[in-house]
Amino acid sequence: MSEFYADMRDIRFNLFDFLKLGDLKKHERFAHADPELISDILDMAFQQAAEVLYPINEIGDRVGAKLVDGKVVMPPGFKEAYKTYSESGWTGLSVDPEHGGQGLPFVCHLATQELFTAANVNFMFTPGLTHGAMGLIAEFGTADQKATYVEKMVTGEWAGTMCLTEPQAGTAVPDLKSTATPIEGREGFYKIKGQKIFISSGDHELTDNIIHLYLARVEGDPPGAKGVSLFVVPKYRVEGGKAGAFNDISTVALEEKLGLHGSATCQLSFGDNDDCEGWLLGGQGNGLKCMFKMMNEARIAVGIQGVGLPAFAYEKALRYSKERVQGSRVSDMKKKDADRVAIIEHPDVRRMLLRVKAISQAGRAMLYYGAYCFDNHLVAADEKESAHWMHQLEILTPIIKAWCSDEGFNACVEALQVFGGYGYIKEYGVEQLLRDAKIASIYEGTNGIQAMDLLGRKVARGGGVMMRTMLGEVTKFIEGPAKEGPLQGEVVALGKATAALGQVAMSFGQTMMKGDVDYPMMHATGFLQMFGDVIGSWLLTSQATIAQTKLDERLSAKGIDANDQAELTTYLQDDADARFWHGKVQSARFFANQILPRVRARAAQVKTEDRSALNVVF
Amino acid sequence: MSEFYADMRDIRFNLFDFLKLGDLKKHERFAHADPELISDILDMAFQQAAEVLYPINEIGDRVGAKLVDGKVVMPPGFKEAYKTYSESGWTGLSVDPEHGGQGLPFVCHLATQELFTAANVNFMFTPGLTHGAMGLIAEFGTADQKATYVEKMVTGEWAGTMCLTEPQAGTAVPDLKSTATPIEGREGFYKIKGQKIFISSGDHELTDNIIHLYLARVEGDPPGAKGVSLFVVPKYRVEGGKAGAFNDISTVALEEKLGLHGSATCQLSFGDNDDCEGWLLGGQGNGLKCMFKMMNEARIAVGIQGVGLPAFAYEKALRYSKERVQGSRVSDMKKKDADRVAIIEHPDVRRMLLRVKAISQAGRAMLYYGAYCFDNHLVAADEKESAHWMHQLEILTPIIKAWCSDEGFNACVEALQVFGGYGYIKEYGVEQLLRDAKIASIYEGTNGIQAMDLLGRKVARGGGVMMRTMLGEVTKFIEGPAKEGPLQGEVVALGKATAALGQVAMSFGQTMMKGDVDYPMMHATGFLQMFGDVIGSWLLTSQATIAQTKLDERLSAKGIDANDQAELTTYLQDDADARFWHGKVQSARFFANQILPRVRARAAQVKTEDRSALNVVF
Repeated sequence: MSEFYADMRDIRFNLFDFLKLGDLKKHERFAHADPELISDILDMAFQQAAEVLYPINEIGDRVGAKLVDGKVVMPPGFKEAYKTYSESGWTGLSVDPEHGGQGLPFVCHLATQELFTAANVNFMFTPGLTHGAMGLIAEFGTADQKATYVEKMVTGEWAGTMCLTEPQAGTAVPDLKSTATPIEGREGFYKIKGQKIFISSGDHELTDNIIHLYLARVEGDPPGAKGVSLFVVPKYRVEGGKAGAFNDISTVALEEKLGLHGSATCQLSFGDNDDCEGWLLGGQGNGLKCMFKMMNEARIAVGIQGVGLPAFAYEKALRYSKERVQGSRVSDMKKKDADRVAIIEHPDVRRMLLRVKAISQAGRAMLYYGAYCFDNHLVAADEKESAHWMHQLEILTPIIKAWCSDEGFNACVEALQVFGGYGYIKEYGVEQLLRDAKIASIYEGTNGIQAMDLLGRKVARGGGVMMRTMLGEVTKFIEGPAKEGPLQGEVVALGKATAALGQVAMSFGQTMMKGDVDYPMMHATGFLQMFGDVIGSWLLTSQATIAQTKLDERLSAKGIDANDQAELTTYLQDDADARFWHGKVQSARFFANQILPRVRARAAQVKTEDRSALNVVF
Repeated sequence: MSEFYADMRDIRFNLFDFLKLGDLKKHERFAHADPELISDILDMAFQQAAEVLYPINEIGDRVGAKLVDGKVVMPPGFKEAYKTYSESGWTGLSVDPEHGGQGLPFVCHLATQELFTAANVNFMFTPGLTHGAMGLIAEFGTADQKATYVEKMVTGEWAGTMCLTEPQAGTAVPDLKSTATPIEGREGFYKIKGQKIFISSGDHELTDNIIHLYLARVEGDPPGAKGVSLFVVPKYRVEGGKAGAFNDISTVALEEKLGLHGSATCQLSFGDNDDCEGWLLGGQGNGLKCMFKMMNEARIAVGIQGVGLPAFAYEKALRYSKERVQGSRVSDMKKKDADRVAIIEHPDVRRMLLRVKAISQAGRAMLYYGAYCFDNHLVAADEKESAHWMHQLEILTPIIKAWCSDEGFNACVEALQVFGGYGYIKEYGVEQLLRDAKIASIYEGTNGIQAMDLLGRKVARGGGVMMRTMLGEVTKFIEGPAKEGPLQGEVVALGKATAALGQVAMSFGQTMMKGDVDYPMMHATGFLQMFGDVIGSWLLTSQATIAQTKLDERLSAKGIDANDQAELTTYLQDDADARFWHGKVQSARFFANQILPRVRARAAQVKTEDRSALNVVF
């Protein structure tokens, strides 16, 4: 039986050493957010991930969610685990105390979610969707709506979903066909009718009720985005604060998928018997506006999958490569009877491992930094400071979603490769991570949509203020003290990549001004990848400068010569903290030297002015 | 029900327009290899792929091969299909007529195998392994052994396997523990005992007998590679030319895998009751030498999977993207009520499609060129000419295996992305292609092993003669007439990439001379990828120059202005040949401009001298 592992040192390093979360305490809102408290919470999260969620991960994949007599039956153990999870209060960790939450920073919530997601991403769909749906009601609901739903969702007593997609309207949400007809004499209530597909956790028996947030067009409203409204549509109507009469919502089918077998992806039919009621949320015609607010959180949440899964795949591959003895050292290739060594001694395996680690760490740094921007915006002293943080979060959101999901999937693939034939079979569970990870590039807006959002909306908006703010932070680092420190080579590389990114953005602006939108859009995905690489390298190199200082202090105190690689390696075996700091520096070096060069390759692709993909007649 | 599609135009273009297969007719060995005959055979292969193999592809995945009461039961329909396949004579297509084959060029065999593999890779394991095992007996067997086995395997009456891997010895084959003990009084016969894992088609009921080729160490022979011998170990002993007594081989378990559910990956136990007999093949201690001969063919065969699967994924994605209406043109983004269009109109989707196509076509060109080298070596006038072809094939073999499998898998991932949510579910079958494709980077030597083979053996051997011969061919093209033709920009790009490749190889040579093997080996995978990119771009650009000439002639005959993109596009809609030629040019342009730039990024990675992956203490 394999065990659950996570790099708790890196999670703590991000929160406390890099983001200096303790500083948030000076704000009243986060006065109770003691680093010690948060650290204890992280330990509890790890323990629950390891002892409650991970043990039912494989069975969740193997048995899967099933549709039996029109009802979804979740895999064995999921109901009990959901009870434990809910009772532990995880859903409310960063929720405002007025709604029954603990009011801790959002970044703390993300850190715990990363652990839970790594341990059992299938399980996490129900609490994840509930968190999103609850957030929408808390933000846009009337006092009545909040009182009816929010606390029950924060406690996990009731679950939630997001019902956006219809068979003919995936990315093009406004093309939906679902309808809402006012119920006479009941202000705010509508008869709901329509089909929704790809609804995660659309049905299950984990909770007494499921609160669907549902997009539909009120009869007579205009076509397109402006006619779309959002409704609260519970599976059972709420009567006296409890789940009452069935609300005419049926589960038509479950999707058979590449992965996520333990998550019920439902086709739902609303109002087959004209007896489905919904309650308008956030005002008529505001459906997409409300939903976008949730989508941004959901996109960040997808980033969690793009970090947690490859991070765990790395831990699995690391352990396997230390145990698996195969072949001799490459430097002994010509020696007969050379000692057999663990495969972690092979340079090609080391390269794969460090690549998976560097990608996971860069993703984590990006994800947590985005959440940290959100937290800082909440406590900003004034509008200017608030905008400073929100501009960064807005431009980072599509990058976190798409870069982490694409690179995270590729990292899972690379981790699988470390196992050789044992990666392709189910034994070590790495193939499940690969299957489960793939969805993240697709849902909550495909990565192509994220790239268009970045290039078509975020980069240009407000005269480019988001991009300027974000790259301003990067430039501050490039021109700061680090440029003369031990990582100066990496800082120079980052500078070049950042300049290349800026030039590409500028050239796209000029091309679009000439009326050619197609050419930049053809490169939108590449542009997002470049941007993500720059952000990843910036964050890892920034972190490495902190880690290097800590390492130097330790080595100096212990009298170790850092330039003697053999002495250093020997020392690091026995000092886990120093090994971690040293590892952080290696991750940053690897990223800047082995990954960042592709930024310039992508810039070169743009410069070619090649239009083959536009000109080809398929 | 989805249908089977393949780009028959590109397959024919490779064989007849590019490789000019008709020229082989001048050699007596291939005097019967008429292009018309071969073209008819391709049509028959397509038909059988579409009508016999593809219809049982999905059920093969869903039901899978199963172990029932110690026997493997193949999925429904496999037995009937195997009979049809065998009776059609596909296994013998390029086999010497003296062994009952048709003696056509190897490249024709590969072309048919590509179609069958795309249609049903699971099914193809049995004939594929049989082909490999048969080839070994035909080459190394005694007259007796050949008479006993070869024809029955060519006809498909009996199947074959390769039994290399043991639980503790994957890549390190010589570390095997299987033993062979001479049977007194029966020259050449041995008692066999041992455990083998990951044996594809290790058991099934498709044939009357299964002929295992088995690596073991004869009692008393030295440890390591020199003590390894090869044995023919049939499931049933051959008595009077027929399958007779059971030979004490049991199937312990089937592996549960990411994909290939319709292929039985067996754990086999030989000689549990001390009653398993084997027949020494190819001389005592020659096991690895014989097996390597087969491994080279097997590595090329893996390349087939790295071409056929993404090529079919492309066809699926192409059709879906023409049918699926979603969103409006990016150039209409700001227009209200803009027409909805098929997603193939979106630049980001076009980029993905052309990328998958270009990768598949480059892989195909590489694969077929390798096979063509083999055919030419067979009919070479003298040793020098023979060496000219074999040097190319030898250096191409690890590239074909690893580049095609890695890039092919990534192309399947990209094709899946075109489908959005529909790619993640089973409906269109693209997720199965992704799962089935993943194995190719792992077996027959992981891609890391291929990279080490390329850099550690092939590049250096014989004073670098293989590399010189191969790059000599590339340089001939770069310096030829194409450098002044319409693809001159692509030729220049190829020239730069080839120079970068050469420089990296030289720098590795110098580094190794200084005694540092680790650094180059850390970059071995990147080096192989660079090499593959150069070969792919060379072949696609070469092909494009031919296609461009054909296109120009057609357009000129029809009076079409090739510089008027709108007129050209309209014309190409209705002329499938011209559209194909134009498409070949776009594939080459896309490859040179959008993929080849990464060669210089990889060269930059090498130049950094970054040793983070070697220095890190995991």
